[in-house]
Amino acid sequence: MSDPRIALCPGSFDPLTLGHEDVVRRALAFADRVVVAVSHSPTTAKQAMFTVEERVEMIREAFAGEPRVEAAAFQGLLVDFARRRGASLVVRGVRGGVDWEYESQMAVMNRRLLSTLETVILPGDPMHAHVSSTLVRQIAGLGGDVAPFLSPAVLRRVRTRAAT
Amino acid sequence: MSDPRIALCPGSFDPLTLGHEDVVRRALAFADRVVVAVSHSPTTAKQAMFTVEERVEMIREAFAGEPRVEAAAFQGLLVDFARRRGASLVVRGVRGGVDWEYESQMAVMNRRLLSTLETVILPGDPMHAHVSSTLVRQIAGLGGDVAPFLSPAVLRRVRTRAAT
Amino acid sequence: MSDPRIALCPGSFDPLTLGHEDVVRRALAFADRVVVAVSHSPTTAKQAMFTVEERVEMIREAFAGEPRVEAAAFQGLLVDFARRRGASLVVRGVRGGVDWEYESQMAVMNRRLLSTLETVILPGDPMHAHVSSTLVRQIAGLGGDVAPFLSPAVLRRVRTRAAT
Amino acid sequence: MSDPRIALCPGSFDPLTLGHEDVVRRALAFADRVVVAVSHSPTTAKQAMFTVEERVEMIREAFAGEPRVEAAAFQGLLVDFARRRGASLVVRGVRGGVDWEYESQMAVMNRRLLSTLETVILPGDPMHAHVSSTLVRQIAGLGGDVAPFLSPAVLRRVRTRAAT
Amino acid sequence: MSDPRIALCPGSFDPLTLGHEDVVRRALAFADRVVVAVSHSPTTAKQAMFTVEERVEMIREAFAGEPRVEAAAFQGLLVDFARRRGASLVVRGVRGGVDWEYESQMAVMNRRLLSTLETVILPGDPMHAHVSSTLVRQIAGLGGDVAPFLSPAVLRRVRTRAAT
Amino acid sequence: MSDPRIALCPGSFDPLTLGHEDVVRRALAFADRVVVAVSHSPTTAKQAMFTVEERVEMIREAFAGEPRVEAAAFQGLLVDFARRRGASLVVRGVRGGVDWEYESQMAVMNRRLLSTLETVILPGDPMHAHVSSTLVRQIAGLGGDVAPFLSPAVLRRVRTRAAT
Repeated sequence: MSDPRIALCPGSFDPLTLGHEDVVRRALAFADRVVVAVSHSPTTAKQAMFTVEERVEMIREAFAGEPRVEAAAFQGLLVDFARRRGASLVVRGVRGGVDWEYESQMAVMNRRLLSTLETVILPGDPMHAHVSSTLVRQIAGLGGDVAPFLSPAVLRRVRTRAAT
Repeated sequence: MSDPRIALCPGSFDPLTLGHEDVVRRALAFADRVVVAVSHSPTTAKQAMFTVEERVEMIREAFAGEPRVEAAAFQGLLVDFARRRGASLVVRGVRGGVDWEYESQMAVMNRRLLSTLETVILPGDPMHAHVSSTLVRQIAGLGGDVAPFLSPAVLRRVRTRAAT
Repeated sequence: MSDPRIALCPGSFDPLTLGHEDVVRRALAFADRVVVAVSHSPTTAKQAMFTVEERVEMIREAFAGEPRVEAAAFQGLLVDFARRRGASLVVRGVRGGVDWEYESQMAVMNRRLLSTLETVILPGDPMHAHVSSTLVRQIAGLGGDVAPFLSPAVLRRVRTRAAT
Repeated sequence: MSDPRIALCPGSFDPLTLGHEDVVRRALAFADRVVVAVSHSPTTAKQAMFTVEERVEMIREAFAGEPRVEAAAFQGLLVDFARRRGASLVVRGVRGGVDWEYESQMAVMNRRLLSTLETVILPGDPMHAHVSSTLVRQIAGLGGDVAPFLSPAVLRRVRTRAAT
Repeated sequence: MSDPRIALCPGSFDPLTLGHEDVVRRALAFADRVVVAVSHSPTTAKQAMFTVEERVEMIREAFAGEPRVEAAAFQGLLVDFARRRGASLVVRGVRGGVDWEYESQMAVMNRRLLSTLETVILPGDPMHAHVSSTLVRQIAGLGGDVAPFLSPAVLRRVRTRAAT
Repeated sequence: MSDPRIALCPGSFDPLTLGHEDVVRRALAFADRVVVAVSHSPTTAKQAMFTVEERVEMIREAFAGEPRVEAAAFQGLLVDFARRRGASLVVRGVRGGVDWEYESQMAVMNRRLLSTLETVILPGDPMHAHVSSTLVRQIAGLGGDVAPFLSPAVLRRVRTRAAT
């Protein structure tokens, strides 16, 4: 029996959007297990809406009904995290050509750092292709309604946070 | 025990390049079985270098040592072929932003036609990102050396064809 | 009282898709009158699904309830047609970066040919951004279901045509 | 008699360039009134060359002879400002494919937040497509000549500012 | 004394536009000699406006005053022509991102075929970035005025041809 | 005898990568002399890995065997530095479409500021197209192996720096 295929979905997920959730669910079509991997990025920590721990929690809530998805935080290089977790795949949703260019360069870079790590790119669902965590933070921060872009558990957290 | 994951690598493969072979091999990282699916495209048949049957044969030769890869020709819609073969994935290598845009639109279209069919995009290996079947046909037709772009079995066929 | 603002929506419309209809309706937000202008393109006439006259008719049917929209065929340069119709605007929907580049070059060219002719570009609705007349013709030709991409009157014509 | 069509030209305009002025003037081809809307963006305020109030003044000076153009500052969401002003259009000039991608995503986002708000994109005039406020600030800050990129009133202010 | 640096400006030049002329003149900034190389492309010959011989003549006329520019026709691979002429550079003007992607792939391909052949890309002058031979042929064929896009000698030939 | 052609390769080179070195070497195909010009960019100085002086030194080391290459730091506008050094060319390597768009806009801007300054763009070698100084700093900072992206002298400096 072969080893399970473990895919990483790395990102900052500040917060997790419906676009992210869509990518994670679609990754289950070709991975046995998906690890949603929240990166610590200290340089942007001060503008963050949620701590890394909160983001891990919100991912767990959002995928509570899906035993093949787990959430984890990581520091350092993605390739090192992949090695530690035995992951053979990185999955990234891409919304447009600018995203694509960045992701394809990262994919090549990561393969040079760890030759067994394959990056697969999922074209973003058109319903979510205009949504990003950054926009959600901006809109919420300016008092706008972000309900169309977030699942209920995440929305509740964002509203609580934006109100404080 | 779950069903095997079958991925289609569709294309015209006239001829199969090292870039194609790289994509097929990488698809084995997340698919149990890869069907290299040669499309009949009658409108371009007159400029073809090889018949669809010859292309299927050359793919079989190139992957003779890899039992998880098979070659097949198909006519009609890709989604219908995917249904017939029980495939849940389409895999496409992408070389640049223009390619990406086309493939991401096709991916959305195919999901609308068959909601269970997921398209995953593999960023082309940089060593092959400038190679296309069209360029290979042009270079071979003008007497150039296409050895760097083709595996031995394919090269032999192209040389024989170009010489006639 | 100022002259009415007349906008041209040029294209081949073979056939009119829901993406086209969306662009025409959105153009009414800033134009008093929209002329859906079907271009004769003799070089591609042989692959056409519908004659220019049929396309004009199907546009009239689709916009039968909207008195501010009319359909017309034109030959020759778009700028000459704009002059004859007193149009000051060209409206084009754009689906992606490749489209955008082409359209922005055409916009500059048309302004050099007729300095009063302004081109405005509407970002395609994400629900339609993967739909094109070419894809609809291909899918219909291969027996696929194009109902999600066409309004009822157009769909009826396409099904009749594809069946013959 | 129908309501006047009010278009917003949002931006930071730090400073207003000839490229911006061209877009505003072209918007008058399809809008009855254009509101040049200067956004407060507190995060970048520290690198600003001009205060928001100064930018509003310089826009008023530049369009002093055009009664259909007005200048205003806004805070918060663009869609809220559009609601308050009764604007039905957002107009954005676009210089290249990267710009286009960003603007088309914002256009979709804004329509989801306010379904009656249409974004129209004007391809940048080639004479101005390489000019941005950021570049003007950099060049002026390094002692370069920015006369080709600014109208006289703006240039006078930039020179005064750069000299201090 | 070192060998002169010879640059090729390859293309179909059907007809030579002001955009082409600009690229050739700019190439003289870094090449000792520029060979404007007209490719025979038999597949498109039937839609051609001018024969290859006529195109060579019109290039000679346009650069009659510039002894460092010559015109030549070539068949076969560009790299073979470069070898025969002792050229070390290929120069291509690029108008947009789609062009760029194509040219950068060709540049890599040509270096793989001839490692000493360097391709340099000149960003198109904004005044000409919307002009292409294809558009000139279309506009002239439809009776439009192509004077802004061509130098006098070329314009005279195009008018004579379009009138027949 | 004509003046030597001097080309500038401007950048921040923090650190010099194999991609940079490749561009500099290829520039020698059409320039008599290449000045690798390290820009002071005070706003990003705090995140810098190396001082400008250290970067100049590492460039000198890397090109110690190539008398036609020199390294220099500059402040202020590139066009002013070009004037002082008598340079007629700017050479930039470009990795993808996003880069290209930025560089082509800078090229037009620089020609407007100094009409004799030509920018030539070299398509990045595919082996290096995913490498950037920013990525190298990130990977080194996270303890990754950057040996594949740097020449030996640079690598030694980066390792020493990363260890402190």
